[in-house]
Amino acid sequence: MQFNGLLEKILNGDRRAISRALSEVENSTSTGEGILEGISNLIGHSYRIGVTGPPGSGKSTLTNQLTKLLVEKGFRVAIVAVDPTSPFTGGALLGDRVRMSEVGTNQKVFIRSMASRGSLGGLSQKASDAGDVFDAAQFDYTIFETVGVGQSELDVAKAVDTTIVVLVPESGDSIQAMKAGLMEIGDIFVVNKSDRVGADQAVTALQVILSMRDHDETTWLPPIVKTIASENKGIDLLFDQISNHKSFLNEKKLFEVRRLDRLKNKIKDLVVSNLRKEFWNAERKLILESKIQNVLEGKVSPAKVVQELIDDFKSSVIY
Amino acid sequence: MQFNGLLEKILNGDRRAISRALSEVENSTSTGEGILEGISNLIGHSYRIGVTGPPGSGKSTLTNQLTKLLVEKGFRVAIVAVDPTSPFTGGALLGDRVRMSEVGTNQKVFIRSMASRGSLGGLSQKASDAGDVFDAAQFDYTIFETVGVGQSELDVAKAVDTTIVVLVPESGDSIQAMKAGLMEIGDIFVVNKSDRVGADQAVTALQVILSMRDHDETTWLPPIVKTIASENKGIDLLFDQISNHKSFLNEKKLFEVRRLDRLKNKIKDLVVSNLRKEFWNAERKLILESKIQNVLEGKVSPAKVVQELIDDFKSSVIY
Repeated sequence: MQFNGLLEKILNGDRRAISRALSEVENSTSTGEGILEGISNLIGHSYRIGVTGPPGSGKSTLTNQLTKLLVEKGFRVAIVAVDPTSPFTGGALLGDRVRMSEVGTNQKVFIRSMASRGSLGGLSQKASDAGDVFDAAQFDYTIFETVGVGQSELDVAKAVDTTIVVLVPESGDSIQAMKAGLMEIGDIFVVNKSDRVGADQAVTALQVILSMRDHDETTWLPPIVKTIASENKGIDLLFDQISNHKSFLNEKKLFEVRRLDRLKNKIKDLVVSNLRKEFWNAERKLILESKIQNVLEGKVSPAKVVQELIDDFKSSVIY
Repeated sequence: MQFNGLLEKILNGDRRAISRALSEVENSTSTGEGILEGISNLIGHSYRIGVTGPPGSGKSTLTNQLTKLLVEKGFRVAIVAVDPTSPFTGGALLGDRVRMSEVGTNQKVFIRSMASRGSLGGLSQKASDAGDVFDAAQFDYTIFETVGVGQSELDVAKAVDTTIVVLVPESGDSIQAMKAGLMEIGDIFVVNKSDRVGADQAVTALQVILSMRDHDETTWLPPIVKTIASENKGIDLLFDQISNHKSFLNEKKLFEVRRLDRLKNKIKDLVVSNLRKEFWNAERKLILESKIQNVLEGKVSPAKVVQELIDDFKSSVIY
């Protein structure tokens, strides 16, 4: 497959080409970098939605139902399942992905799981890059579904247009969500499994917590939507709120602000990863290995070794 | 307070000095860097334990009870509560910290909460740095308690000697834990709230999952401990297993391997943060601001701007 041919096929929505592009991007190959470079002026079509929340809140089911609704409305939908899974557990083999089979066989839907492989903060950037591929391939919506409530979730939230935080009525769930920093990133809150006891109390608790957020008439006050995703209830209301938020971003010209922020973060991340790659050549790896025992024995401090390595890096820059 | 006086006070376990040192370290001040530099050849006393697991599994209660047991045995214990909480929610004001009051007033115990403030991967390094301060202050055990199941948890696990993964019997919890990559990092697994239905099945499921891990006679097979932390049951068994794991690390000379890895990661992180600081001076921030609109409009690719910035950085290196 020629590289230029590959780009063209991505733009035409060729599934095999998209799949290959996603692999190249995820593995940070030079082809992947070329693809991102090639599509960088072709993005802006896709609306990006983040779905996050604590484990067991039903994020996958909700994503599933929302996807079905979007497809019914004639949209093409991509799903990026951000999964901090280890190689040991065999990636996203188990669990929720199975439920996706219902929408996964639809030609208007493309599902991609991404595992973290222990990269520091790199996962959210790669998810965002995958979003660029789907964007170039003219998907109307890209949904980023994250597992867990850690730093990568907060990072993913920065890379989308609308963040949906999914909670369940169980007492303490909203407190846990607060602790995980989810209350601040949510544009829409979903109380899923809302047929359970305590749903209304959970909504009230959320309202109280959200009213603590600084807001005036120019800021978005996050709505709270009750759903029972497993019974496909409330998904239409959720879609309405997504549309409301989209209109709000449009009216307030916040789309461009968010996209500018996204681009700045992307460039900053690229700077770090490029510098890191250049920095850790064989020679400096050797310097580190030769010094580390002395650091362990307290004969030289970490900061001294860092300075020595940086000096070596600078002296190697011939300009 | 003189800087040298501060160092001495830390080594003597002065609580006010430790508290100040932790703040300086957490805020990455130059005093903080000086402290870390000053104590870098004075660490290695403290045994580091990570406690992680999904929200609601009872990590705080377990940490609380384990701390009480350690204090009864005559040890001094520090707790670093790694809390990816937002400024909006007021940090660690709410919830579990309250339960800590029982051990928090003991003079042999020092509790410190650390919030993420959105730093990419920086949290685990700062937690590890705080561990160094406690180490220099001669605490026998430092327990790192993490909230949630995200990337920062996996990073914290790399920075401790023994990682305890806390689960509850509820069906699906171990699957969620697998997905979050917890199965791979655990040295000891705790099934907490083991008076609930399904505890024995959960243990069996864990055993099956753990037997999938590559192991032979030279590797540690993680034990599974049943506890009811709220009733202080099983904590002594947990302590025994921690001691077993400690002996194992000693026998196999793995302590030094782990500490070397820790130091290498620390140096690599320091390299990145130093380069980043140096890189983003006022001039290059201005370059980024002046180019970003063109990137947004697709007139220039992110990679081109990155190259331009890196070229500018290199040309500014006078050596």
